[in-house]
Amino acid sequence: MMEREKERKVLTVLHGCVIITMDEEQRVFRDGGIVIEQDKIKAIGQSPHILHHFSHLADNIVDLTGHIVLPGLINTHVHTSQQLARGIADDVDLMTWLHNRIWPYESNMTDHDSYLSTLLCGIELIHSGVTCFAEAGGQHVSGMARAVHLLGLRACLTQSTMDFGHGLPSSWATRTTHDCIQSQKDNYDKYHNTAQGRIRIWFGIRQIMNSTPALLIQTRDAAIQLKTGIHMHVAEIPYENQLVMDVHEVDHGTVTYLERIDFLQNNLLAAHSVWIDNNEISLLAKAGVKVSHCPAAAMRMLGFAPVREMLDAGICVSLGTDGAPSNNRMSIVDEMYLASLINKGREVFANGTTDPTALPAETILRMVTVNGAKSVHWDDELGSLEVGKKADIVVVNPSSWSMVPVHDCISSIVYCMRTENVVSVMCNGLWIMKDKRIINVDEEEVISKAKQASVELLKRAGIELPTRMNMI
Amino acid sequence: MMEREKERKVLTVLHGCVIITMDEEQRVFRDGGIVIEQDKIKAIGQSPHILHHFSHLADNIVDLTGHIVLPGLINTHVHTSQQLARGIADDVDLMTWLHNRIWPYESNMTDHDSYLSTLLCGIELIHSGVTCFAEAGGQHVSGMARAVHLLGLRACLTQSTMDFGHGLPSSWATRTTHDCIQSQKDNYDKYHNTAQGRIRIWFGIRQIMNSTPALLIQTRDAAIQLKTGIHMHVAEIPYENQLVMDVHEVDHGTVTYLERIDFLQNNLLAAHSVWIDNNEISLLAKAGVKVSHCPAAAMRMLGFAPVREMLDAGICVSLGTDGAPSNNRMSIVDEMYLASLINKGREVFANGTTDPTALPAETILRMVTVNGAKSVHWDDELGSLEVGKKADIVVVNPSSWSMVPVHDCISSIVYCMRTENVVSVMCNGLWIMKDKRIINVDEEEVISKAKQASVELLKRAGIELPTRMNMI
Repeated sequence: MMEREKERKVLTVLHGCVIITMDEEQRVFRDGGIVIEQDKIKAIGQSPHILHHFSHLADNIVDLTGHIVLPGLINTHVHTSQQLARGIADDVDLMTWLHNRIWPYESNMTDHDSYLSTLLCGIELIHSGVTCFAEAGGQHVSGMARAVHLLGLRACLTQSTMDFGHGLPSSWATRTTHDCIQSQKDNYDKYHNTAQGRIRIWFGIRQIMNSTPALLIQTRDAAIQLKTGIHMHVAEIPYENQLVMDVHEVDHGTVTYLERIDFLQNNLLAAHSVWIDNNEISLLAKAGVKVSHCPAAAMRMLGFAPVREMLDAGICVSLGTDGAPSNNRMSIVDEMYLASLINKGREVFANGTTDPTALPAETILRMVTVNGAKSVHWDDELGSLEVGKKADIVVVNPSSWSMVPVHDCISSIVYCMRTENVVSVMCNGLWIMKDKRIINVDEEEVISKAKQASVELLKRAGIELPTRMNMI
Repeated sequence: MMEREKERKVLTVLHGCVIITMDEEQRVFRDGGIVIEQDKIKAIGQSPHILHHFSHLADNIVDLTGHIVLPGLINTHVHTSQQLARGIADDVDLMTWLHNRIWPYESNMTDHDSYLSTLLCGIELIHSGVTCFAEAGGQHVSGMARAVHLLGLRACLTQSTMDFGHGLPSSWATRTTHDCIQSQKDNYDKYHNTAQGRIRIWFGIRQIMNSTPALLIQTRDAAIQLKTGIHMHVAEIPYENQLVMDVHEVDHGTVTYLERIDFLQNNLLAAHSVWIDNNEISLLAKAGVKVSHCPAAAMRMLGFAPVREMLDAGICVSLGTDGAPSNNRMSIVDEMYLASLINKGREVFANGTTDPTALPAETILRMVTVNGAKSVHWDDELGSLEVGKKADIVVVNPSSWSMVPVHDCISSIVYCMRTENVVSVMCNGLWIMKDKRIINVDEEEVISKAKQASVELLKRAGIELPTRMNMI
């Protein structure tokens, strides 16, 4: 009898809520119910039906009347290691940003700093409804992995690699191509598929200006061999394209060059992709490359990515927050709002007026769910609420001053919702935030330790910020 | 003795906090204190000094250790009447927005709807740290005034006037120029300087396409006579400028025409001002016209206002949220973040790359404080924390996952702060929100009544929204 008890899987029923499934039929249940068995969705449907068939079997029955339930949101470009660097590079030009702030910061980080930074970042991600993210690349995958494991999140973790470039911090400048590849293979061996399968290890390329052709080719081959993805910053600034044109004698920029060396594959997640022309959009589409659009960071540092054109060309475009020193707010909820606004506004420059119909709410919502899942090659288990998929779920309370009145739940989620409205988050069948309380770590303790670590790190890195106004 | 007790004014001391004064010396106290006597600031300075001199006299002493204190934020373009219309016009073109959604909605509103709408909007404004706003113009000033009075906010209220135009709702089409002016004068008589002086009445012009020249001239003269301001939507879309050029035979657009009829005065608050050329920027600057920049609404519906150029020309530019159907989020906190991002990004189109140094945090902070106060002609009493000014104060808690680490409190307030971090708000010396709780109304009750009123209003106005996705 005890044996049978042990074998029985935990069954949770959520009911009484609007469920935006994001499945292929685009079903939205006005009064939906969902059954979670262990880490997976066992059933989904109309509330009365779900309650009738499952309430007698359930260990937990949660009445979510008045709430909206969504698939866990997927943030496809996050520098979790940069969370302790929030606010250290505001209002400075790009070269100051990189050489005087970010590189000194990042090259002086310890594994423990990275752990704390990812914990703090993870807390913010969870509060904004994220259950899965793609790390954009930091130095200490071990620190990230420990934090992700503890928080209960899901992630594709990536080391940032550079084997070339002027002005690199001394500790980075000695790394060979082989070092870069081997260190990532070691990370793969240690952490891939750990944390109940919630952690996957990807390969990372920081950017083309810091990569030899050998690093690109070996990364491509290693990723194919290990059947995993590659995360890379692509076509961020005009200078990058110009340099690639000069050095590699191609007629446009990074994307054109990457195509020539057969680097464009469907396992590539290209972050930003701001400065690409129509031909390069076709190249990305043809190769099945995924693009992570980071609206805030692009507006601040890079430019206007041709998002509508990429979507029209059939490219899978998802959303990312980028890192805290590029954005400050690490909220995919805000990025949804921004992605829509910015891309409606961008039409001015193509057509003379904004186009308020561009990137409608349902498109944006797809970008942070199904497109996010495809971008991290996890759409067999993530991105929509369907039977057999992982139970990664966000619960939203729309009955607050920030969302009322809700006439259209889809557009409300995209345009009105704020992090305040995200009340509970489940990942892999377990609550990682419930009623706004982070479950697996002590939020206050992380905040306090992160503050301290950040101050010490800046001191160690010799980063001093100018004072604004008249501090007395 | 009792008489003397009665006469004694209530004294409150706030201490232990960072105080961003926004005074002319740009003083920021690292450990500041502030003394409030009745509705005014009696003293401000270093905490120990303030405590030493005032704690024995104080009725209330509030320890704000770890908090940041700012002047109450000023939102210079808000349609409080449109709060019940949030989400009714997402992702639709401008003509559908105006003719099929906003006009039917607004022309079917009752005074009670307007009251509820302003209550709901006011709650959102307070949660985002706003103590004073400029109403952009609705139909029922009486309803707005009751709500503002009750909430404890400060406002310049305006009726929306139109005496001309095609396709106007029938109830509006019969209004004469005289009706428009008289009704505003009546509002002035009834409500100006009411609510302990917190309410002022301004004149309103909806937009040039719905105004006869007579309405413009008479509005100008009436405002001068009553020594009050005029709030008008100016140069919103290229079509508007084209129409003005065709009808009035001027060589650019609305601003050029308004200059010709001597309408540009320093009591004019021009909302948006997106489509203006360099000459028109000079005209606005020379006349002392104030501009309310609404970043979200501009991105979605209008275009990129030349904000940097206007600031460079010496124009007083402030920030506004616009109305809920143009923006969805009615948060000046978000507009600060957006104003910076959008205007850094806009430089791409002038210079080929974004300029991360454009509109730095201190500029943005001035826009929502001192510039806001000048824009509503209230800078003698508002906009900064100085002895003798009104006690309009925001208390921010930066020790949360959304802001930590804070290395630079000015940029943190602008780029990281969210409505979540706004904990308490004082207006005219009284707390109107304390520890996130709205003081003067029952938030839940307002939300519930507003939901109901919104559904009924849409039904009455015959507005039906298309369904997105597959609702079952």
